[in-house]
Amino acid sequence: MKGKITRTPFPNSEKIYVKGKLFNIEVPMRKIHLTPTAVIEDGTTILKENGYVVVYDTSGPFSDPRQEIDLKKGLPRFRESWFLQRSDIEQLSELSSEYGRMRLADKNLNHLRFEHIKLPYRAKKGISISQLYYAKQGIITPEMEYVAIRENVNNKALDIESRITPEFVCNEVAAGRAIIPANINHPEAEPMIIGRNFAVKLNTNIGNSSMSSGIEEEVEKAVWSCRWGGDTLMDLSTGDHIHETREWIIRNCPAPVGTVPIYQALEKVNGNIEKLSWKIYKDTLIEQCEQGVDYFTIHACLLKKHISLAMKRLTGIVSRGGSIMSKWMQLHDKENFLYTHFEEICEILAQYDVAISLGDGLRPGSIHDANDAAQFAELDVMGVLTEMAWKHYVQVIIEGPGHVPMHKIQENMERQLKACHGAPFYTLGPLTTDIAPGYDHITSAIGAAQIAWLGTAMICYVTPKEHLGLPDKEDVRNGIIAYKIAAHAADLAKGHPGAIVRDNALSKARFEFRWKDQFNLALDPERALEYYKVGSKSDENYCTMCGPNFCAMRISQSVKESDSKKECD
Amino acid sequence: MKGKITRTPFPNSEKIYVKGKLFNIEVPMRKIHLTPTAVIEDGTTILKENGYVVVYDTSGPFSDPRQEIDLKKGLPRFRESWFLQRSDIEQLSELSSEYGRMRLADKNLNHLRFEHIKLPYRAKKGISISQLYYAKQGIITPEMEYVAIRENVNNKALDIESRITPEFVCNEVAAGRAIIPANINHPEAEPMIIGRNFAVKLNTNIGNSSMSSGIEEEVEKAVWSCRWGGDTLMDLSTGDHIHETREWIIRNCPAPVGTVPIYQALEKVNGNIEKLSWKIYKDTLIEQCEQGVDYFTIHACLLKKHISLAMKRLTGIVSRGGSIMSKWMQLHDKENFLYTHFEEICEILAQYDVAISLGDGLRPGSIHDANDAAQFAELDVMGVLTEMAWKHYVQVIIEGPGHVPMHKIQENMERQLKACHGAPFYTLGPLTTDIAPGYDHITSAIGAAQIAWLGTAMICYVTPKEHLGLPDKEDVRNGIIAYKIAAHAADLAKGHPGAIVRDNALSKARFEFRWKDQFNLALDPERALEYYKVGSKSDENYCTMCGPNFCAMRISQSVKESDSKKECD
Repeated sequence: MKGKITRTPFPNSEKIYVKGKLFNIEVPMRKIHLTPTAVIEDGTTILKENGYVVVYDTSGPFSDPRQEIDLKKGLPRFRESWFLQRSDIEQLSELSSEYGRMRLADKNLNHLRFEHIKLPYRAKKGISISQLYYAKQGIITPEMEYVAIRENVNNKALDIESRITPEFVCNEVAAGRAIIPANINHPEAEPMIIGRNFAVKLNTNIGNSSMSSGIEEEVEKAVWSCRWGGDTLMDLSTGDHIHETREWIIRNCPAPVGTVPIYQALEKVNGNIEKLSWKIYKDTLIEQCEQGVDYFTIHACLLKKHISLAMKRLTGIVSRGGSIMSKWMQLHDKENFLYTHFEEICEILAQYDVAISLGDGLRPGSIHDANDAAQFAELDVMGVLTEMAWKHYVQVIIEGPGHVPMHKIQENMERQLKACHGAPFYTLGPLTTDIAPGYDHITSAIGAAQIAWLGTAMICYVTPKEHLGLPDKEDVRNGIIAYKIAAHAADLAKGHPGAIVRDNALSKARFEFRWKDQFNLALDPERALEYYKVGSKSDENYCTMCGPNFCAMRISQSVKESDSKKECD
Repeated sequence: MKGKITRTPFPNSEKIYVKGKLFNIEVPMRKIHLTPTAVIEDGTTILKENGYVVVYDTSGPFSDPRQEIDLKKGLPRFRESWFLQRSDIEQLSELSSEYGRMRLADKNLNHLRFEHIKLPYRAKKGISISQLYYAKQGIITPEMEYVAIRENVNNKALDIESRITPEFVCNEVAAGRAIIPANINHPEAEPMIIGRNFAVKLNTNIGNSSMSSGIEEEVEKAVWSCRWGGDTLMDLSTGDHIHETREWIIRNCPAPVGTVPIYQALEKVNGNIEKLSWKIYKDTLIEQCEQGVDYFTIHACLLKKHISLAMKRLTGIVSRGGSIMSKWMQLHDKENFLYTHFEEICEILAQYDVAISLGDGLRPGSIHDANDAAQFAELDVMGVLTEMAWKHYVQVIIEGPGHVPMHKIQENMERQLKACHGAPFYTLGPLTTDIAPGYDHITSAIGAAQIAWLGTAMICYVTPKEHLGLPDKEDVRNGIIAYKIAAHAADLAKGHPGAIVRDNALSKARFEFRWKDQFNLALDPERALEYYKVGSKSDENYCTMCGPNFCAMRISQSVKESDSKKECD
């Protein structure tokens, strides 16, 4: 199985670990070494060092050749020691969920099962343990220092005043403006922060639907998506063996993992929506909390009264969770049980520090339906439930659309901020037109860049296969890079400290024909090199694009040399 | 050679021709026929017609199977009769440019030459013939009615008041806010309009650099780029036989063709910048005017005093034309000859109605250099030369950057509008980050969508190979679709009349699982179908993305059906 996992280090890059000052922590980053610039002075070639650029690294231990990886053992549980030093958490003597115990007892699943399952942790009774709780008390956790160090990547040139400090992180989390999704049962995950005063993050979705891939491929999908820059990973599997697949993924995933528990609940009743119940859902929540899922998408804000609003639409309800809950409400003529049991949900999640992502069951599925009454009615309920979750010290993010034309994007951001009291916004795109199936990573990267600039904290990627089929590995790579571009473009526009360092280093390399440095600094070094190689034989001072006589940069270099000579005369 | 040309009609599409009311003209459009929606009422399946959607069609006669195409004869010269009815134009007895005559006399070129070269047309001495001139007199030309009809595509649902009329076109052209690039020596071209109160247009670049392709491939490149949606085509060839290649392209290109004459002028002096002169350049202008080039990029606004500003940059001068002229000024210690001879340039171009695209020789080539003193110094000169060109009734557009982070885009648009008195803006992207070589069609589509929404009239596409090498056909297709997306997203945001019709029709098809209609309405039907086919066997009411049990649209349909039944009860 090991051979299927991508472990190639990035070119000319070194994995470095920055130590904490408050805690005994090590924050991994990628250091890209640059080659020197050759300058001819008085007939002699002088090499001027360009040093290195350090970039935010989501790829986990897989890209560090010094780290031994054994999927069967899972990644190091490095965060375990952080919270075991505290006295507020206990290890359980058995799984709390019925379903979890049943699966564990089923010998037919032995061949599929992750071997080294540990017993889960949980908060001691009546005690709050979440990052939000600690933040509210003004207590800085190792997770907070970790993300502070991580966010300061590339910020070395700036004075200490402009740095993101652990105190700043603590304040942002306390205010509900940022979350650190970090289930105590996912101690393998490298902490990260989602909030509008931090680097824009991106989520990737993986999952098998009932018709396609198996467990081994799923783990590599997670590794692959972290490799290219996924900050969090939603496991949207809907097929057989969801439970076992998830265990493999979580144990080997260096990024926080999210799920939509209603999907698995529905599998448990064989896809029969009518049979869904709070009991089954609750057991699913506990099952997943104890496996280590870091955040749940919960469609608790789509109420019975909203359904008729959605039926007026061109494309109805396009959220899977939203359509399931609507059908359930219709079949039972009852209010959404995720809404009526929301307080209980919070009580459960608080015990493991699982965050809530309030699902937008009524997100518009077409330009026509954007910013309509259905969408904004649900948004108002999201605001109410946000405050309820905060009361239980549960961290919250808010999901957003969807399909929105550019001129209606700003209203989304403004209304979300107001309705949801500043809780982080997490949007799917939005797609800015419906007419390009096959290219929706682009229609949506345009919208994602805009809304992230306006303050959205995390954007959910879209692959070229959106609306058409399941993405393969190349689609995932293309989707992630499109979204890394959107996120980074937003970071530049927001003036995120240090974001421009990489652009400047790459542009300098480009201008100086340091081709390899240019590729190594790129979001996708392999693709850049591949495209360059098509037409070029070697490291020359031009590319096939313009040819040697028409290379503007080459001529511009010559203008510059003559210009500086003139100055010396 | 015919076999190399792509002539496949678009699926389920019909080429229609809308007749003019003022003139005997026929405007081609693409009519996409839709299948009906099957609705079950009282146990009976009823088919509800969805009609058709008409879309703007840049593909020319190539996509009409009824049209016979013979590349050796060129496309029909349908616009010839329009201006021959007027008495202000004469046919010359020989080519006016020395170089043109020389090439024609060279028997070694016979095998390369387009066979049916006609003698060129030119305005009678002292008479103005441009669209701008006519517009200023309040005279509506067939070209104006043609573009008015073309812009109203999809606008059938709206009342006549909101239509783009020939009078409106005439006013926009008269004010300099829009141009209709239409050299009288390119009567094969289908008129189109570039202006911020019209649909956003996109330009594609083709061209061989000294190392790659030949003449036959160039013609197919033009056909290919018009097929996918290129509104204008810049021929940036820099290799051998530029003159002959261009003749083939123009004679077979249904879109206006632009060039950068300095490239060919430089070829004529074997790449030796020092030997460039006004004499050679002037002869090149006339040569190309008489071949039928519709607009020229002219780097007349980069002045000697600007060079030192550009030398302070991270990436200097990245415009090919800009770097060439800077080097020339430096070598000769003289002012830019395109600036000092600008009035003569206008006099020449006016005689053929060739438009000027004022080249931004100092566009920023990196995020670092965006909106700097060099860029805006040149912009101010552009404003001065715009007014000079207008005095000669020469139509003008203004080229813009380049590389600009999102928060600096608006300033570009505002300063351009003010400095250049409302002349249309035509930007390359802009790229919103430098860190994604290999994906610059995406980094730049993000910026292009934004700047087009703010009022840029035409966006110049960028392919995935930008900065790395020459694009192949797939790169061109990918670049164009990314830019069609940006242009259409901007049209939606601007509320361009009728733009949303295609989105709505596609979304309705999507919601009703009319897969083929969805694909046929897509910007790239082939790609959408290809991606869908990977995982699906037939026309089912779901795709592999979510599988049958988790298809939100399927469940939503069921909610809707139950909901409407309830209403009937």
